[in-house]
Amino acid sequence: MSASNKALVDPEKLDRLAQVAVSVGLGLQEGQDLVMTAPIVAAPLARRIAEHAYKAGAGIVTTLFSDEELTLARYRYAPDFSFDRATGWLYDGIAKAFSENAARLAIYAEDPMLLANEDPDKVGRANKANSIAYTPVREKITGFDINWTILSYPNPTWAKKIFPNDDEDTAVKKLADAIFAATRVDQADPVAAWKTHNANLHRKTAQLNGQRFHALHFTGPGTDLTVGLADGHEWKGGASLAKNGTTCNPNLPSEEVFTTPHAMRVDGYVRSTKPLSHQGTLIDGIEMRFKAGKIIEARATRGEQVLLKVLDTDEGSRRLGEVALVPHSSPISKSGLLFYNTLYDENAACHIALGQCYSDCFIDGAKLTVEEITARGGNRSFIHIDWMIGSGEIDVDGLDASGNRTAVMRKGEWV
Amino acid sequence: MSASNKALVDPEKLDRLAQVAVSVGLGLQEGQDLVMTAPIVAAPLARRIAEHAYKAGAGIVTTLFSDEELTLARYRYAPDFSFDRATGWLYDGIAKAFSENAARLAIYAEDPMLLANEDPDKVGRANKANSIAYTPVREKITGFDINWTILSYPNPTWAKKIFPNDDEDTAVKKLADAIFAATRVDQADPVAAWKTHNANLHRKTAQLNGQRFHALHFTGPGTDLTVGLADGHEWKGGASLAKNGTTCNPNLPSEEVFTTPHAMRVDGYVRSTKPLSHQGTLIDGIEMRFKAGKIIEARATRGEQVLLKVLDTDEGSRRLGEVALVPHSSPISKSGLLFYNTLYDENAACHIALGQCYSDCFIDGAKLTVEEITARGGNRSFIHIDWMIGSGEIDVDGLDASGNRTAVMRKGEWV
Ligand SMILES: [Zn+2]
Ligand SMILES: [Zn+2]
Ligand SMILES: [Zn+2]
Ligand SMILES: [Zn+2]
Repeated sequence: MSASNKALVDPEKLDRLAQVAVSVGLGLQEGQDLVMTAPIVAAPLARRIAEHAYKAGAGIVTTLFSDEELTLARYRYAPDFSFDRATGWLYDGIAKAFSENAARLAIYAEDPMLLANEDPDKVGRANKANSIAYTPVREKITGFDINWTILSYPNPTWAKKIFPNDDEDTAVKKLADAIFAATRVDQADPVAAWKTHNANLHRKTAQLNGQRFHALHFTGPGTDLTVGLADGHEWKGGASLAKNGTTCNPNLPSEEVFTTPHAMRVDGYVRSTKPLSHQGTLIDGIEMRFKAGKIIEARATRGEQVLLKVLDTDEGSRRLGEVALVPHSSPISKSGLLFYNTLYDENAACHIALGQCYSDCFIDGAKLTVEEITARGGNRSFIHIDWMIGSGEIDVDGLDASGNRTAVMRKGEWV
Repeated sequence: MSASNKALVDPEKLDRLAQVAVSVGLGLQEGQDLVMTAPIVAAPLARRIAEHAYKAGAGIVTTLFSDEELTLARYRYAPDFSFDRATGWLYDGIAKAFSENAARLAIYAEDPMLLANEDPDKVGRANKANSIAYTPVREKITGFDINWTILSYPNPTWAKKIFPNDDEDTAVKKLADAIFAATRVDQADPVAAWKTHNANLHRKTAQLNGQRFHALHFTGPGTDLTVGLADGHEWKGGASLAKNGTTCNPNLPSEEVFTTPHAMRVDGYVRSTKPLSHQGTLIDGIEMRFKAGKIIEARATRGEQVLLKVLDTDEGSRRLGEVALVPHSSPISKSGLLFYNTLYDENAACHIALGQCYSDCFIDGAKLTVEEITARGGNRSFIHIDWMIGSGEIDVDGLDASGNRTAVMRKGEWV
């Protein structure tokens, strides 16, 4: 991070973002340790978060920094066998910290194009090896064993991707403003604003939970997809109660309501409406065909090789683990920006996720065994990758078991 | 790291330092993973090291970055109980990586005064908790299970401490030059220079091993100390053969020859000749009295509270685990600089270490059990802290079991 960059990001709002991350995002409890991941470039935010976490009573805050140049060094100089390896010892350690009730915070601010020029075979293999080794961590996160949250920071390389026609300083400023707006820290009382927002999301999930649809039907340009919902599925959105008794907001921002699809009951075809930035590779123009829950055809106009490698990760990577509804008029969508960052783009559009489901998205999910979740239609995989299928042109219907329709969204808006 | 700082450090020499770290320091083997620790400010060196490690065939290089501001945030804002906690999960993970044959590299470039203004009680407690949690890592390092090395980088806050009268840029340049000189990367062929240097150190250890002294006797201003040597001790220096079959140079620079004292046979008094920078606290004017191996009196003119806390870590922290001989004319000593960094200062003067011994410093050490090492006089502790007792005024004699004397050093130089 250059010295000039530091001044570009309003230090007061950055501090409020850190405060919101600790109080609203994590709901950090006195005595909890915190494991934070962040790119080096986001160190100014990581430092503010550490301060607020300690003020909230954290034991030890451990920050695991990544560095884009170190990531690239591997792709450029490592021997071939490197790309089938992963740091299992580190992930096992993090999982151990979680099992000792540490909270988890991720600052997600990667250059979406970081690996654009690297060998897609190496990228795909490294992603797969990493996804497998990450399992003990991912299981504790998707199972909400502990409170966790993800937020972003205006990394210059990322900012330039969103605002290619601006100089770097202007791009960073604009991205910082977009982040502050989306996380409500530009409002007078961000904590109160999140309370209101969470209440609105909970009202919507309560309505959908009352409707108990058997399936959702998405129609729009290039899309005619029926997504069966898991037996005993529960809609979630906004604040979540983790198994350790803590209420957290896992995504900052968060505009979605989401639940678990039935892994065996997804049929039809679907086209992506925004590019997906996956681990430094841009995947665009995705088209997929599903039969009985499984992807039987998949292509992309860009990044297809990495996408196909993802689909070959395991049995569950060709099935869905999440379906989410986001109105086209959501604030992030209204910004008109394409963020090339799933945390932002998935909160601007209806989306589906390949791979692992959230056990949380079942009635009494915390009490269900893995086998019970599978029996209800919950998918299991080493991956969980959201991609966007919503727009102002999409309609969504709810179907009951007999096929009776209820309009849920029209032209991307709640009915 | 400021943008200007980057240019201050000669990029070609930095690259050669990274090369020397990987080839001479680690002797990294094809297929080994590498766990690197570094302050964020040393990222430019960490990146060069990662590149050379991958070129040498490393599987995955994992860099665990520390950050001075994050360290300070804990002391300033964390609740009191934090200072009795440590990140055991992370150390257990690193130990696991070592047990899977990962090599270890540490970039040691801390601000020696980082914690100077923090509560010494908190500093002492945090050090103790950390030392205990670090045990699985320390055991694999001191036992030379794997190849490892430590080197430094010209951190601006550290440079200003060494060169207080220079502006920061000049201080960084001067420290960079001192590091390049001490690690021989300013020479035409650094690898050949290290080969010659290692041969010289091995000649000296061979001589001392042939003499099989029962004890060493140090005399000088404020010092009259007899350090019994462990039964079956072996002198080491320069390149070391790790148990994984790899030859490494554990310290860059390294000018010392060292062995294991007998934990029960150290008697007399000793005064430090240089300040000791210990985990961000400066400890100066150390005076200690030993009886039957144990420290029975200890004081310091500065940092005494942290020192006394260190001595209370465990039973072994009041006994010696290392004695090392370094001629006063060693290149680092001749630079006339006080580095406030043990890696440098211990290679400019004879020194002793409180705490854990190196099992490597015994004949057939790799085959000895912990009990056998203890029976031979090897000390065991959660700490290993070197401090300097050598100078141009110190004499060292070797004693045999009957008390017959052989002159080893006079006025700090080999006889
Ligand atoms: Zn989602
Ligand atoms: Zn998702
Ligand atoms: Zn030493
Ligand atoms: Zn030592």
